[in-house]
Amino acid sequence: MIRHVVLFTWTEDATAEQKAAVATELRKLPAAIPQLRAYTVGPDAGITPGNHDFAVVADCDSVDDFLAYRDHPQHQAVIAEHIKPILASRAAVQLSL
Amino acid sequence: MIRHVVLFTWTEDATAEQKAAVATELRKLPAAIPQLRAYTVGPDAGITPGNHDFAVVADCDSVDDFLAYRDHPQHQAVIAEHIKPILASRAAVQLSL
Repeated sequence: MIRHVVLFTWTEDATAEQKAAVATELRKLPAAIPQLRAYTVGPDAGITPGNHDFAVVADCDSVDDFLAYRDHPQHQAVIAEHIKPILASRAAVQLSL
Repeated sequence: MIRHVVLFTWTEDATAEQKAAVATELRKLPAAIPQLRAYTVGPDAGITPGNHDFAVVADCDSVDDFLAYRDHPQHQAVIAEHIKPILASRAAVQLSL
């Protein structure tokens, strides 16, 4: 299994509506991308200081399935239209489990 | 559920042995910390460029259980003895699911 983990920080001028739209749009992807076996996304819960703002954990059966998710047009559209306009920084790892 | 996600980068002079020890020692924690419902750790798989070096995904039932993991002496010992000596940067998010 490939577990794809991404953390984002948002720009200071990102609005609450823009931030919420990232979660709303990403959560539509499992219905469109069957290679997503599990998909958890959302904002930081505010438990500890100094965190990034948002996380995505995507589980796929294989590297090919992960690449299908990564390159899927609907995913790329969410990145282009909702994430990149408010993106300050990004950190990612793919775990092979 | 709280899903705690952490990504690390390692210093340039970190050895393969030091990096491997982080995974080895962290993987001992579920046997010592019953609040860990699921725990996946490991190095980046090298599928995409520009990634961080290592990821931890820890699932707990509640905020209190997450804090018990975070503050557990055996966890703190791994951080002090194995992670901090080779840590270059850290990014974290807690998801409330």
